[in-house]
Amino acid sequence: MEGPVINVGDSGAGALLHLMRDGQPRTRAELAGLTGLARSTIAQRIDTLLGAGFVGPAGEATSTGGRPPARFAFNPAARVALAADIGATHGRVAVTDLAGRVLAEHRDELDVALGPETVLDWMIERFHELLAGVGRGQRDLIGIGVGLPGPVEHSSGRPVNPPIMPGWDNFDVQGYLRERLGVAALVDNDVNIMALGEHFTQWPAAAHLMFVKVATGIGSGLISHGRLHRGAQGAAGDLGHLQLPHGADIVCRCGNTGCLEAIASGAAIAARLTGQGLPAKSSRDVVTLARGGSVEALHAVRQAGRDIGEVLAAAVSLFNPSVIVIGGSLARAGEHLIAGVREVVYRRSLPLATQDLRIVQSRTGDRAGVIGAAVMVIDHALAPSQVDAMLGTQSAR
Amino acid sequence: MEGPVINVGDSGAGALLHLMRDGQPRTRAELAGLTGLARSTIAQRIDTLLGAGFVGPAGEATSTGGRPPARFAFNPAARVALAADIGATHGRVAVTDLAGRVLAEHRDELDVALGPETVLDWMIERFHELLAGVGRGQRDLIGIGVGLPGPVEHSSGRPVNPPIMPGWDNFDVQGYLRERLGVAALVDNDVNIMALGEHFTQWPAAAHLMFVKVATGIGSGLISHGRLHRGAQGAAGDLGHLQLPHGADIVCRCGNTGCLEAIASGAAIAARLTGQGLPAKSSRDVVTLARGGSVEALHAVRQAGRDIGEVLAAAVSLFNPSVIVIGGSLARAGEHLIAGVREVVYRRSLPLATQDLRIVQSRTGDRAGVIGAAVMVIDHALAPSQVDAMLGTQSAR
Repeated sequence: MEGPVINVGDSGAGALLHLMRDGQPRTRAELAGLTGLARSTIAQRIDTLLGAGFVGPAGEATSTGGRPPARFAFNPAARVALAADIGATHGRVAVTDLAGRVLAEHRDELDVALGPETVLDWMIERFHELLAGVGRGQRDLIGIGVGLPGPVEHSSGRPVNPPIMPGWDNFDVQGYLRERLGVAALVDNDVNIMALGEHFTQWPAAAHLMFVKVATGIGSGLISHGRLHRGAQGAAGDLGHLQLPHGADIVCRCGNTGCLEAIASGAAIAARLTGQGLPAKSSRDVVTLARGGSVEALHAVRQAGRDIGEVLAAAVSLFNPSVIVIGGSLARAGEHLIAGVREVVYRRSLPLATQDLRIVQSRTGDRAGVIGAAVMVIDHALAPSQVDAMLGTQSAR
Repeated sequence: MEGPVINVGDSGAGALLHLMRDGQPRTRAELAGLTGLARSTIAQRIDTLLGAGFVGPAGEATSTGGRPPARFAFNPAARVALAADIGATHGRVAVTDLAGRVLAEHRDELDVALGPETVLDWMIERFHELLAGVGRGQRDLIGIGVGLPGPVEHSSGRPVNPPIMPGWDNFDVQGYLRERLGVAALVDNDVNIMALGEHFTQWPAAAHLMFVKVATGIGSGLISHGRLHRGAQGAAGDLGHLQLPHGADIVCRCGNTGCLEAIASGAAIAARLTGQGLPAKSSRDVVTLARGGSVEALHAVRQAGRDIGEVLAAAVSLFNPSVIVIGGSLARAGEHLIAGVREVVYRRSLPLATQDLRIVQSRTGDRAGVIGAAVMVIDHALAPSQVDAMLGTQSAR
């Protein structure tokens, strides 16, 4: 989970809940010992959290005589999160519990270019269906997390000049969802939520991780000290428009030449294969061809891996992650993409930066996005200050 | 300061001291209100901190009747830090108080290639002189912070294959200093401590900052969420060996071709000017020529700025800082270096990432390194867990 700011000596219920989110059952006395807070304060806070349902009874501890003391633990079923991962040509929605476990999900082909109202209305309808399916209602919602396939100003949740999302520029996604679902929404770009999802589920102990999505476009999400590094404008991780030395004659849709995305993305490979007379209209066709054993497609995918490796070698020198996860639809073309990446990164980066570096395929696959979107909104809503505001249990500060 | 990990409800003296490091004088009652801790706990912790000297009396609050309550505040004079910034050809040492203020300092020409014993013995002798000069002794030391001009494994403090530091590879700098000065030492590369020093003194509110040192070599230090991003092996920020598209025929001492450092460093410029018949043996000579108005030198410095800008444009897309600080000896050549950097970065980076980006000259100048080294060791030594271990005031956990 992202590290929330916890104030020194914070004795609110939110701080206690934060501690209990590890799922460990504990007695009041154990909690008092762990936090240094007075037993009376602990008892009050536990009562508040029990009342709100965030904490539940979890059996009894063994007694040294007399009535055995009750144990309490975090209750992940207390609320549910709604999560959506919108790609260029698909939409995936899920309902999760407060531990980020997917309770129900749904995926559709969906063109993001249909515009915000159409896409968000589709999302809202699916959310209602999923909620009904798991027997939960609007008052059970902790929040909504959404990933979009373009740059998003995280603080406002508004897309900023998104190249493949006509009609979405500066659209108030948060406001639209809040008005219709009655609960706060957080919005980020799809690669950031995939990085969060992969880190949360597969690499929780990795302090510095880089998630690279290779699909129609190319982008990355950075985790620094266990926390998403969004940068000053939420624009961090933009790999797609870094220049390749050998691409000077290839013009990118951004106007510059030699951009990685114009050379090694699924769209760029599909265009090249089409030029060679192969049936490749999209990133997905490239995967189909590669999996079918097309020599041209396999060759193109491996070369794309090398090209991505050139840029990642620079990113490794700069950011020095311990894990690079390669995801996105093109990662499903088999080992060729990642083999190309490894070939170049281990040769080009500094030895110190690569000595323990792991370059791996995404394990969460298609689900990284929705899980990350859920984790984003759960971490935000269960941050100590938010919980205290919700329950009215701030410290005296 | 770097954000320490503070446990929920931590009631140790270290957590209280952390809160008080803002320098604000407060009464015991105000501290109890701020932290939610019991007044009796606060009273005990204040007594402990008073006894150790970390906190001192700071006048009296106005009373609502009866004896006015005493105020207490952090006492930066309680201990002193020793700090050293070792460059390729100079050494700078300082004694600072616990707020990072320089009390005394000294600078010498010093060749790091003389090897660790010679350089560290010089450092130790200067430390003794500086301490005597400010009337402090060994028992006043909080710790030692050292910056070295090469890659350092931060956890062990050992240089790792440092290219310009013969004899230093894997040398136990921490052990050598601890044995002779009786206090713990932290070691990092010089660019990281310069980033810390510049952030601490000039840009404390900037969450994401990049400090670029342009001198004999080129490197950078990254601040993410107010904290130094060292990466998995402490190798993050290595800009010097990123490739420039137009440098394919220039071989770097690292064995690759087209590295930024082989093209735009002070050493590279000096070599080029020498080839043009100008008296430029070092980075410093380049600065002297540029300040003297040499057209060739000014041209070379501006072109170096553009080359650095090419690489920084990629770094900006990846890391999205709000501030880039350009420091190091070559930054003293005047506005030409930074003008070249700006010219390329604002043209090449994504508009979203540059809309509020500031590219500025280092303001701390030569002192950024020693102040950063002091801040590094002070933040480490005054982290709550360290203070509690020192004073025996851990929470019951």
